[in-house]
Amino acid sequence: MGVVVQNIERADQAVIDGLAACGVATVHEAQGRTGLLASYMRPIYRGARVAGSAVTISAPPGDNWMVHVAIEQLKEGDLLLIAPTSPCEDGYFGDLLATSAQARGCRGLIIDAGVRDVRDLTEMQFPVWSKAIFAQGTIKASLGSVNVPVVCAGAFINAGDVIVADDDGVCVVPRANAAKVLEAAQKREANEGDKRDKLASGVLGMDMYGFREPLAKLGLKYV
Amino acid sequence: MGVVVQNIERADQAVIDGLAACGVATVHEAQGRTGLLASYMRPIYRGARVAGSAVTISAPPGDNWMVHVAIEQLKEGDLLLIAPTSPCEDGYFGDLLATSAQARGCRGLIIDAGVRDVRDLTEMQFPVWSKAIFAQGTIKASLGSVNVPVVCAGAFINAGDVIVADDDGVCVVPRANAAKVLEAAQKREANEGDKRDKLASGVLGMDMYGFREPLAKLGLKYV
Amino acid sequence: MGVVVQNIERADQAVIDGLAACGVATVHEAQGRTGLLASYMRPIYRGARVAGSAVTISAPPGDNWMVHVAIEQLKEGDLLLIAPTSPCEDGYFGDLLATSAQARGCRGLIIDAGVRDVRDLTEMQFPVWSKAIFAQGTIKASLGSVNVPVVCAGAFINAGDVIVADDDGVCVVPRANAAKVLEAAQKREANEGDKRDKLASGVLGMDMYGFREPLAKLGLKYV
Amino acid sequence: MGVVVQNIERADQAVIDGLAACGVATVHEAQGRTGLLASYMRPIYRGARVAGSAVTISAPPGDNWMVHVAIEQLKEGDLLLIAPTSPCEDGYFGDLLATSAQARGCRGLIIDAGVRDVRDLTEMQFPVWSKAIFAQGTIKASLGSVNVPVVCAGAFINAGDVIVADDDGVCVVPRANAAKVLEAAQKREANEGDKRDKLASGVLGMDMYGFREPLAKLGLKYV
Amino acid sequence: MGVVVQNIERADQAVIDGLAACGVATVHEAQGRTGLLASYMRPIYRGARVAGSAVTISAPPGDNWMVHVAIEQLKEGDLLLIAPTSPCEDGYFGDLLATSAQARGCRGLIIDAGVRDVRDLTEMQFPVWSKAIFAQGTIKASLGSVNVPVVCAGAFINAGDVIVADDDGVCVVPRANAAKVLEAAQKREANEGDKRDKLASGVLGMDMYGFREPLAKLGLKYV
Amino acid sequence: MGVVVQNIERADQAVIDGLAACGVATVHEAQGRTGLLASYMRPIYRGARVAGSAVTISAPPGDNWMVHVAIEQLKEGDLLLIAPTSPCEDGYFGDLLATSAQARGCRGLIIDAGVRDVRDLTEMQFPVWSKAIFAQGTIKASLGSVNVPVVCAGAFINAGDVIVADDDGVCVVPRANAAKVLEAAQKREANEGDKRDKLASGVLGMDMYGFREPLAKLGLKYV
Repeated sequence: MGVVVQNIERADQAVIDGLAACGVATVHEAQGRTGLLASYMRPIYRGARVAGSAVTISAPPGDNWMVHVAIEQLKEGDLLLIAPTSPCEDGYFGDLLATSAQARGCRGLIIDAGVRDVRDLTEMQFPVWSKAIFAQGTIKASLGSVNVPVVCAGAFINAGDVIVADDDGVCVVPRANAAKVLEAAQKREANEGDKRDKLASGVLGMDMYGFREPLAKLGLKYV
Repeated sequence: MGVVVQNIERADQAVIDGLAACGVATVHEAQGRTGLLASYMRPIYRGARVAGSAVTISAPPGDNWMVHVAIEQLKEGDLLLIAPTSPCEDGYFGDLLATSAQARGCRGLIIDAGVRDVRDLTEMQFPVWSKAIFAQGTIKASLGSVNVPVVCAGAFINAGDVIVADDDGVCVVPRANAAKVLEAAQKREANEGDKRDKLASGVLGMDMYGFREPLAKLGLKYV
Repeated sequence: MGVVVQNIERADQAVIDGLAACGVATVHEAQGRTGLLASYMRPIYRGARVAGSAVTISAPPGDNWMVHVAIEQLKEGDLLLIAPTSPCEDGYFGDLLATSAQARGCRGLIIDAGVRDVRDLTEMQFPVWSKAIFAQGTIKASLGSVNVPVVCAGAFINAGDVIVADDDGVCVVPRANAAKVLEAAQKREANEGDKRDKLASGVLGMDMYGFREPLAKLGLKYV
Repeated sequence: MGVVVQNIERADQAVIDGLAACGVATVHEAQGRTGLLASYMRPIYRGARVAGSAVTISAPPGDNWMVHVAIEQLKEGDLLLIAPTSPCEDGYFGDLLATSAQARGCRGLIIDAGVRDVRDLTEMQFPVWSKAIFAQGTIKASLGSVNVPVVCAGAFINAGDVIVADDDGVCVVPRANAAKVLEAAQKREANEGDKRDKLASGVLGMDMYGFREPLAKLGLKYV
Repeated sequence: MGVVVQNIERADQAVIDGLAACGVATVHEAQGRTGLLASYMRPIYRGARVAGSAVTISAPPGDNWMVHVAIEQLKEGDLLLIAPTSPCEDGYFGDLLATSAQARGCRGLIIDAGVRDVRDLTEMQFPVWSKAIFAQGTIKASLGSVNVPVVCAGAFINAGDVIVADDDGVCVVPRANAAKVLEAAQKREANEGDKRDKLASGVLGMDMYGFREPLAKLGLKYV
Repeated sequence: MGVVVQNIERADQAVIDGLAACGVATVHEAQGRTGLLASYMRPIYRGARVAGSAVTISAPPGDNWMVHVAIEQLKEGDLLLIAPTSPCEDGYFGDLLATSAQARGCRGLIIDAGVRDVRDLTEMQFPVWSKAIFAQGTIKASLGSVNVPVVCAGAFINAGDVIVADDDGVCVVPRANAAKVLEAAQKREANEGDKRDKLASGVLGMDMYGFREPLAKLGLKYV
């Protein structure tokens, strides 16, 4: 506790933006069905799709002091990511902090706790994925750390990892794998367009994927 | 496990459409306050109101293979209904499956688990009522069954039963009762228009329903 | 049980409206971070911001008879507030009751249980904050009380207390404190505008609030 | 609602007792991994292992009147099984009802709601599997039904089905399958004794079950 | 925040002890089915049955400083009751605090949060009813209040109110009503012994309570 | 997926045993209030206090094949630790696996899912800390990994880390810190004995810790 790591490595911005374009479901599949945060992490409004480098905050429950510390560490294209050290749904973050973060180029917030001022945040188009919407205020009394590894909503995250978030939830891509995952994700996407067309035309997945034989072998019976 | 029932009986389509027009709350009352699925079954977007014949899927947790099998069984006006055999919130269903289902006339999905690609599904206007929105991918390794009786979100459902779903949730009407329930629901609705007008004009429910006397008998005191 | 308190005191309407304008997060802070209802109390649609005097209902689980009794007690500018006597998510309230309440000037409903007909309520712009959306019908068999003190979603509320509700949740302000809390809230707001401008221009909270020194004293290390 | 089915068929008592001896985990496997009630159904004390024919109760939330009706229908060796018609954790059942049920040969209670007087029930050795322990009292105002099909904690149950319950939870065996399931369960058990001895002596499951080859084929790598 | 009320009134000790002897379920019924704390408040070990005057603590989340302050206010026969100001499951209390409280005659703890050292507390026979067992440590940084009114696990409690707790949960009896509630509870108990004997001898509740006629009037059908 | 790491480093056995003796609450404090798994991880029986080196399993939901693979990797004094790759409460583990694990010197199981055969496990004195007790069977169809880093119940764990578990829950100590944490924990313990004696004799924490002055400075008022 009480450490701020100042110089973190980030993935290439083009890679990050590419991952945002692919979206959470595709990125998660592209890296072997890993990296998802828990399904209780929901966006405060629909339609946002972002990716950014994680500036992580390990914060005491009900204490948002370190958010100010972290904002100073933000670079254009980053996402703030807050993990409390014990379960908490207090509202660590509101419109003032969002204003400050946005002024530094921050693309949004991922928080395994609560957020408030969601009407203002929606108007500002500052997207947040959180465990709760809760106006409960926090204090500024204890130290936490910035840019240390954290577990957030069940996922292990290092500062500088790429976070992708959209209406389906939130996914982390370890920084070192970002380019490789993007490549896999884009292949997957290309592939999907073709499949979508066939399915839309009435071709069955049963035939397109060749499922009839393996299902019959397992003993599937039609009655 | 491992059975696909191919020829299920369905209710009359006009009856089904009539039930959709009445909506979940009215249909549920009309059949004696029964048939609701659990309140955690929420629509991925607001405003859809549909009814259809249930094509049921009993699926292993985290395995969506049988969804492809079920899609082949769909007829115009059906709804897919997925019940995992143990609690699960994985994302069994996304935009490719929705494309395929929609191509066969499917009106939507009811799933006691997770769904993903909700932005695409919303754009496609393919409505889904689910327990979770979760990008977690599934596998294709084990058999389940199609068009067998299932318990979904606390309700017992037979293939071909009518499912009604809207912003209030999801309700099942046993196929054999559909016409009778529609009749009761429509009576209820006709009745409600009149009541609504009176209440809007300022008449109190206390007077309109004659509640003063029975409440006084029970001992209600005004102080 | 079985008591209706008819003449409750209410706060000044201008004060109530002033609190609505400040919103839940600000009001909650202005009264010393107290008064919030649990975070599971969510609006059925986004964008409403209301305040009103609480007409409270202590209702048996699954029995909405007392809602009719309470509607007669409503005055222009009131909010209905329903607390069941044991945990329940049944749909106590729908469009007919909303029509009646709205006809009497009611501004909305706070209910630690379920609500239904949410599509109609949204069209009517009758806002509701509830624990659940659930079509489950209720009965009319037992007495409860109106305008007695209740615990609703974890907050203690007296009839006539001011309830403020918006997208951030619900907050209660004891009637006697309303004017004082409004004053504090408005000061807080005035103050915030200034801070927001500074933060938007890129000034850091670290500097604006003078956090560097106290954090250093506690031992915060930059590495 | 409002129906009491008086003459239900029951499975053979020797079969029922045989299933009790096998226990929940074995019986559940023996019938193809089906029949379990939700994991939140927990025993009020450890060590009981019972089976019995289900006398089912479909009860309104917070109303235990039908329990008295059902007790009259009990025969030696039965189990009471209560499913509320909407989610509820009120304490439907306590020591007086247990005394009455026990006097009629009832072996225990399965309830998808609350129970109270658990100290007395423990002393009486009247086992209960419930969703909650909650002293909240209930009323006697509305009808329900006895010995109708119900969904209880996610499982579909007909009156006269065999219920098996122990420290692992609760499982239903459809009456018609009881003998066949017992046979399969006993085979499984016989089989397990042998396996247990081998494993206890240090033989690995990897070798005993021949897992090395199929795992290697799937690509398992040792590093 | 930041207030310690030193001289609270307490109910008569004989009345308190009488309420303990009746137990939670009976006391709750005797005061009109009110006063229960939420069902998630569970004892850390079975078999304790206590009552005491509440020394209340309104504590910040994750901060147990005020517990030390409250212990000084304890008198022989009191119970500590801790309500955090926002939801929290941290372990506010362990064996050292229990040692100190027990030295002052405290009979146990009610906490709407977590407790730890439960093995030691069990050995000491210091009973605790809590929302969680969680070792998570707390800090000592902020003020709370002692002997102010609180909402704890959904119940409103004043300092000096009588708390009754046993295996069924926790119930509050307002101090002013304690003697009257005890009287009603004891009548209820006397009454129950007689009923228990009849039911044990095989008399049905249907007959003992005269339920057949009212049920028939409501339309109960035997088939 | 599909990797088994065979040679993991373990902490010194004397250190591990020392940590077991200190218990979860003390160890957690000794390493700066970190390392706890979520409070929903509960022991299947009370009284066990163990520590061991983690043999980790990253397992697909509802598939326990890798448990057999992991058992081969166990050494005397290890603990099995299972983390499913998506949320799951199926019963991955029962008495046969416990027999096998115990034969290899395994001291217990930590599983962020379900366990079954708890009566047998209790008789065997094979302790388990789990999220659920659930008889639901699993399959053997997909690969997972053994001795890779996992997130289990919210904590990040490497194979070979020391796990301490008792009635208070579960705590992880990174292998490299084990000796240092033990030292701190033992100091803390020594210290506690002394404090306990003072508190037992009636000395107040207020005096022993010198809290009066700092509390007064913060403005605590006695009324």
